[in-house]
Amino acid sequence: MRLKRKDLLGIEDLSCEELDTIISTAESFKEVSTRDIKKVPTLRGKTVINLFYEPSTRTRTSFEIAAKRMSADAVNISVSTSSVVKGETLKDTAKNLEAMNPDCIVIRHSCAGAPHLLARYLRCSVVNAGDGAHEHPTQALLDMLTVKEKKGTLKGLRIVIVGDIAHSRVARSNIIGFSRFGNEVRVVGPPTMIPPGIEELGCRVFTGMDDAIRDADVIMMLRIQLERQKAPLFPSVREYSRLYGLDTDRLSMAPRDVVILHPGPINRGVEISPEVADGPYSLILDQVTNGVAVRMAVFYLLLGGAREG
Amino acid sequence: MRLKRKDLLGIEDLSCEELDTIISTAESFKEVSTRDIKKVPTLRGKTVINLFYEPSTRTRTSFEIAAKRMSADAVNISVSTSSVVKGETLKDTAKNLEAMNPDCIVIRHSCAGAPHLLARYLRCSVVNAGDGAHEHPTQALLDMLTVKEKKGTLKGLRIVIVGDIAHSRVARSNIIGFSRFGNEVRVVGPPTMIPPGIEELGCRVFTGMDDAIRDADVIMMLRIQLERQKAPLFPSVREYSRLYGLDTDRLSMAPRDVVILHPGPINRGVEISPEVADGPYSLILDQVTNGVAVRMAVFYLLLGGAREG
Amino acid sequence: MRLKRKDLLGIEDLSCEELDTIISTAESFKEVSTRDIKKVPTLRGKTVINLFYEPSTRTRTSFEIAAKRMSADAVNISVSTSSVVKGETLKDTAKNLEAMNPDCIVIRHSCAGAPHLLARYLRCSVVNAGDGAHEHPTQALLDMLTVKEKKGTLKGLRIVIVGDIAHSRVARSNIIGFSRFGNEVRVVGPPTMIPPGIEELGCRVFTGMDDAIRDADVIMMLRIQLERQKAPLFPSVREYSRLYGLDTDRLSMAPRDVVILHPGPINRGVEISPEVADGPYSLILDQVTNGVAVRMAVFYLLLGGAREG
Repeated sequence: MRLKRKDLLGIEDLSCEELDTIISTAESFKEVSTRDIKKVPTLRGKTVINLFYEPSTRTRTSFEIAAKRMSADAVNISVSTSSVVKGETLKDTAKNLEAMNPDCIVIRHSCAGAPHLLARYLRCSVVNAGDGAHEHPTQALLDMLTVKEKKGTLKGLRIVIVGDIAHSRVARSNIIGFSRFGNEVRVVGPPTMIPPGIEELGCRVFTGMDDAIRDADVIMMLRIQLERQKAPLFPSVREYSRLYGLDTDRLSMAPRDVVILHPGPINRGVEISPEVADGPYSLILDQVTNGVAVRMAVFYLLLGGAREG
Repeated sequence: MRLKRKDLLGIEDLSCEELDTIISTAESFKEVSTRDIKKVPTLRGKTVINLFYEPSTRTRTSFEIAAKRMSADAVNISVSTSSVVKGETLKDTAKNLEAMNPDCIVIRHSCAGAPHLLARYLRCSVVNAGDGAHEHPTQALLDMLTVKEKKGTLKGLRIVIVGDIAHSRVARSNIIGFSRFGNEVRVVGPPTMIPPGIEELGCRVFTGMDDAIRDADVIMMLRIQLERQKAPLFPSVREYSRLYGLDTDRLSMAPRDVVILHPGPINRGVEISPEVADGPYSLILDQVTNGVAVRMAVFYLLLGGAREG
Repeated sequence: MRLKRKDLLGIEDLSCEELDTIISTAESFKEVSTRDIKKVPTLRGKTVINLFYEPSTRTRTSFEIAAKRMSADAVNISVSTSSVVKGETLKDTAKNLEAMNPDCIVIRHSCAGAPHLLARYLRCSVVNAGDGAHEHPTQALLDMLTVKEKKGTLKGLRIVIVGDIAHSRVARSNIIGFSRFGNEVRVVGPPTMIPPGIEELGCRVFTGMDDAIRDADVIMMLRIQLERQKAPLFPSVREYSRLYGLDTDRLSMAPRDVVILHPGPINRGVEISPEVADGPYSLILDQVTNGVAVRMAVFYLLLGGAREG
């Protein structure tokens, strides 16, 4: 099996069938990481370049481990230690890397659309590992896989996403993905963090968190990225936490079988209390485990599937 | 063969039998690094994460090479270029990494006890690659292997450790390890660098270096870490060097068959003179070679031994 | 086949026969990078250390990919994140790395002669990946391979090198290499950038670019390294560009079958116009592709050739 596309740039581009294919392939690869020998030879001799213009332990590590478990060679390039500071354009950097015959370039960049630019210019596969406030498709895919595992379905659910919707590529990719499967996606957050027109992506805006979670199946808490805000978007962390944080008190207002997601890294005591993050409803670590499986699936479906059947 | 423990956190935890097992396993792996094809397939499909919160060329490289020579996949994470700056707790970082199903996390951290914290929370193996001024067990193991090779025994020797005993995890691990085998361990250094009660670890404090080395079998010089001292612990480098440095003059007061160790990197002309560092008694480079073998043995005994018999 | 030398330090040391051997071996390895499984098992179990004292995305990545496609284990050490800041000498760092039994150390250093120092002290192979303003032999080799591919020969050509000849290790290696094969090598640049006595390397100095390129077979544009100049070597970028830049107007004065090389990264609109860099005469990306092949060949001829025949 193989996707009929060269690149994975965003959930926006993917049909339900493609989403299903990636998620079910990831389910089958999950088992590899539990084996004694956690490796399949499928992508031996393939070269994956992780080109990260923003630092990220977990995402880069997840892609690197996924590549290695598929037996591909992984090469990491991070901007701070690289010659891209010399002022070369993104396109030139990419064309140069491509000339070394990689099979896939995984790119994270602070500018929305950077992966799309690369995809247009390069013959090799491009995977978006997060572009500005635009998309983070493998995150949404791992979130969908996690929800599917626990809920048994990806349809007809009420999904509540809480936090800085305006600046979150995770929110954006998830709104598009979950709404595509006919789920009801609700977004909640301070008015300054809800972009006008967000409903067009397929979600409903709630102003109060209690209302939104009352009959929710899934609550996805977003990280408050204090370090990215130039002008403060809310009066204080304590105020934010009181109105939009998830603690056991507030969680008690949600249904008993609700599940909690968070893309990490979490700010304990800010958007989520330690009791909730570490509690029985939390799927935060399942998400991380599923991240490796989703990325193995993406590499497989972009680079290797055709040879298998 | 396999250690009956999940983690390698400190020499303190290890019995003489376990120390013997690691050292003799390392002896047998040493040969692998001299082969034309320096690789055994033993740990194929295992994932080792090197999580370094302090920079270190030699230790990280040694662990990485050891993992690769065992055919494991090695993933490096160094703090300065990673998202741990975002304020995630160590425990959360570790739980997240564990969720990617590594077999072993090698951690170096400036806080004593950090590896022990991880070991308590994680199901995967944890190896301490140096925690604050506490322990550096693989260093002590490689030192013991080096001494055993040259002296033919690990018992009944007089070992002199010279320098900043108070702030040295290398000293601490070695005092515990060598004294456990019934060697006489002596420590020497400026009074400000000898912690009160150090004798309880199993060593004798000497005030003069000449006295200590007169009948020594092994002299272990410690690095003066000028860059770590906030308040100066001795009046001047020259003064330190005169009293506690090892040059050919002072070395001539030790027995003819004495051997010299140093964990590196060395400050030539400070704690050790170039003539001594590069001289026939110096085992400094043997230590580095043995470091790779010890780490291969540790990976084998923690991750792979059981499957082999 | 194997080179009768341990190290690759500079073009200066290589006979025409050796240059031919490397270039033709690289030609044969080029095909590997176009395979579905881009990997040969030749150097399995070999360890290559990339020791970079200057940052470089493309060169480090090219060496790393070359090592991995030969099935060697590649270990990267970059200075900014390493303990070499602790003041260890280059020789001590190198002796310590060697004690870990690598097969090859690839070194880039800002000091001319650093690789030669290492080569003298180490038993393992040393490859110069650029030393100060001295040599960058794999760059010259990939340039020669690129010219040979397009021109069908490496003899009797007119090669024009334009830019900061005085500070360019790329220029130096290429002047020596191309002149050795009996080509006419011409250098052009501002008088401050032409070192006195450069003719002794085997080139002719031209003051005007138009004169130099009129009957050229190859034009090699050098990068203006604005970030390296302490005192300005020319009045302004615009002035430089006007006199020594290559745009379509100036290119029209060269023969129709001229080819354009640039070691990258390019400053678009400074030493080369976008139209020329991306135009049909430009071999810039071929150079990058050939870089991987040349480095595979170098690893093969230094580390592995003997075992094959």
